[in-house]
Amino acid sequence: MNSKHASINLNIRGITQSPTLAVNELSKKLEKEGRRIYRMGLGQSPFPVPVTMVEMLRNHAHEKDYLNVRGLESLRKAVALFHQQKDNVLINPDNVMIGPGSKELMFILQLVYYGDIILPTPCWVSYVPQAKIIGRNIRLIQTTFESRWKLTASQLEDFLKSENDMFKPRLIVLNYPSNPDGETFGDEALMEIAGIARRHEMIILSDEIYGQLNFEGKHTSIARYYPEGTIISSGISKWCGAGGWRLGTFAFPAHFEWLIKPMAAVASETYTSVSAPVQYAAVSAFRGGIIIERYLFNARRILQYIARKCVAILQKGGVRVHMPTGAFYLFVDCSDFRETLERRGISDSAGFCRKLLEDTGIAILPGSVFMRPAEELSARISLVNFDGAKALAMSETIPISEKLPDDFDRHCCSAVIEAMERFVNWLQES
Amino acid sequence: MNSKHASINLNIRGITQSPTLAVNELSKKLEKEGRRIYRMGLGQSPFPVPVTMVEMLRNHAHEKDYLNVRGLESLRKAVALFHQQKDNVLINPDNVMIGPGSKELMFILQLVYYGDIILPTPCWVSYVPQAKIIGRNIRLIQTTFESRWKLTASQLEDFLKSENDMFKPRLIVLNYPSNPDGETFGDEALMEIAGIARRHEMIILSDEIYGQLNFEGKHTSIARYYPEGTIISSGISKWCGAGGWRLGTFAFPAHFEWLIKPMAAVASETYTSVSAPVQYAAVSAFRGGIIIERYLFNARRILQYIARKCVAILQKGGVRVHMPTGAFYLFVDCSDFRETLERRGISDSAGFCRKLLEDTGIAILPGSVFMRPAEELSARISLVNFDGAKALAMSETIPISEKLPDDFDRHCCSAVIEAMERFVNWLQES
Repeated sequence: MNSKHASINLNIRGITQSPTLAVNELSKKLEKEGRRIYRMGLGQSPFPVPVTMVEMLRNHAHEKDYLNVRGLESLRKAVALFHQQKDNVLINPDNVMIGPGSKELMFILQLVYYGDIILPTPCWVSYVPQAKIIGRNIRLIQTTFESRWKLTASQLEDFLKSENDMFKPRLIVLNYPSNPDGETFGDEALMEIAGIARRHEMIILSDEIYGQLNFEGKHTSIARYYPEGTIISSGISKWCGAGGWRLGTFAFPAHFEWLIKPMAAVASETYTSVSAPVQYAAVSAFRGGIIIERYLFNARRILQYIARKCVAILQKGGVRVHMPTGAFYLFVDCSDFRETLERRGISDSAGFCRKLLEDTGIAILPGSVFMRPAEELSARISLVNFDGAKALAMSETIPISEKLPDDFDRHCCSAVIEAMERFVNWLQES
Repeated sequence: MNSKHASINLNIRGITQSPTLAVNELSKKLEKEGRRIYRMGLGQSPFPVPVTMVEMLRNHAHEKDYLNVRGLESLRKAVALFHQQKDNVLINPDNVMIGPGSKELMFILQLVYYGDIILPTPCWVSYVPQAKIIGRNIRLIQTTFESRWKLTASQLEDFLKSENDMFKPRLIVLNYPSNPDGETFGDEALMEIAGIARRHEMIILSDEIYGQLNFEGKHTSIARYYPEGTIISSGISKWCGAGGWRLGTFAFPAHFEWLIKPMAAVASETYTSVSAPVQYAAVSAFRGGIIIERYLFNARRILQYIARKCVAILQKGGVRVHMPTGAFYLFVDCSDFRETLERRGISDSAGFCRKLLEDTGIAILPGSVFMRPAEELSARISLVNFDGAKALAMSETIPISEKLPDDFDRHCCSAVIEAMERFVNWLQES
């Protein structure tokens, strides 16, 4: 049997393993040919897991029991307290659910909740394939560079009016600071969107996995303004570097047992519970404390420094890009170079990234995988190709009252800066 | 919103978290009232995780990278070699897939493969809810006490004839040694079933998670006889006691890339990859060696000893039960007591287990949750309510050439034996 005639669920046919795969394969091929490659396509934190968490994992390595399907009680308490202290949102530990990554929880949410999914774009790469696998309606709302790639209240209003159904079951996903653009919402925007969601009784899936990587440490959750309808999604993959550990969290509003219960039923028939040693270790992440706070302070300071340097180079070179407010991504729009690029045979973002990689060794992801129109010359640059452990160690030697020195990049992230300069030079070739 | 009017996927409504929940809740309530409870409802290994694995987890606690969606290469190699050495089945490491529990891999298999699912009963509790969630056709084949709760070739033939469609896409699940009955297939039965599957081009999902707990260490996989169509499912939850770690394995036949590829695509959009530290630690389980072999030898010797003692008590008391060939379960049929039980108001397996728990404190699971007819007075007894670490330590002091002494139970598993005696006395009340 081959895939041509195999009996495969039609929702799944054509879904490829991940849009980063093609970029990775071409990168490897070029590396084998001896080319220098700048790996800026990945979405993985460059920093190590904080030592308190690693120690906790060691201490709990012997834990062998199946834990509660919704998660270890002490971890659910720590997550609830975390959202209370960091986000000023009151969460009942009974309304916290732990999963093997927030991605898995999002999948189960979409599987259980029978409603449309609304996605402002650019959006993270997995929301759409999940909806396709399950067979849900996907409704994209395209944002613009001018609105800093953020959904506006009037866009949302217009969309909902066009739908002609006030209370259709809907799930809207908001991701901030966001992958792929690092932008976040201001308080006013959050309030306006919350108001609309409330009127339409829409569920907001608020993906705040980069919340603690807001450069100023000033993340605000929309749950502040719509506590009764917002699910806060977080985890340990981004702000504490433990992506490979696989642990994500959902914090539900009060009175959401109608949704949590069937989600837990599906969890119990799929992943059962999250790895016990990892759950015990994650408690220390959410409890926080001086070691975690110092880690976060330095991570933010480094990421902001790098983003600033890169944005300055790109803007000077004529690239449309905003200074992000958090995370480790830049979302660039190279429309201003469309004419010269078209002469070089480049007419869409996929071709743009392929040619860039071939010519310069810089691997980044095209805007199309983030659901932007194929012909838009946009792309995501991940600012992660540096030694995070070394950078953290260096940053820790610099007092918290001081900025990182201007030449910090030379010691621990020169490749990032070099890539940005190459990128601009390549763009300006005629 | 409450569940009455919530917009929930209709396939998921009515699926409860797990059939063990009701038993657990009643057990807890009775324990609070000061009652002694014999917890024989769980399906968790009583033994600790082997020390080599715990050490490996400690040594790899810092691993933070997202691993390959199909699994760590060294683990996939170890799993392939494990099946080659233990089962005499040739597996290509490229055809091994690692998941967060074999249950999750089974769910993804059912989600991806568009075919009916055939389940001989009694069967493990999760196959049916998974098929319901996804919306697949479930075809049960009821086996009998006389066939040792095992599917016969002629039963399978008859079923397939009745279907009137030779090559309908089908997945048949065989679990041996099996949960809930501890029985396994003989070589001849495996050969016959393999022949039928081959003629119908059926996929066999061979759930061999208890394979290494065959009491004689003589497990045979059906992949020996149908290598081109058998997926071997295994993991570290049962034979090395690491259920809470969450790691399962699928070993696919050659030329199954048509199925592995879409399964990996779904995995990459759900759990992404299995926890990295756990994958590194699992390598030592599948590589085996003297510590693992000694652990397995003693675990088998203890489980066989306990099963023998319990079966003797039950059979003497008039209960229909077979001496199992592996795992840690007994599946009992109390039909011979139907008349007296009916006088006591018991007419189905659910009522049987509820009354048993109330009267004696013995918590076991009714046959109905394993898809047996509701009125059949069958039930699963888990022989796991003893201190596995203590039992292992004691068994290790006894030479491998000797049997465990007749009074072994008094030192480390007296509650199991006591429960069986209570059970028989309760049955014989008139």
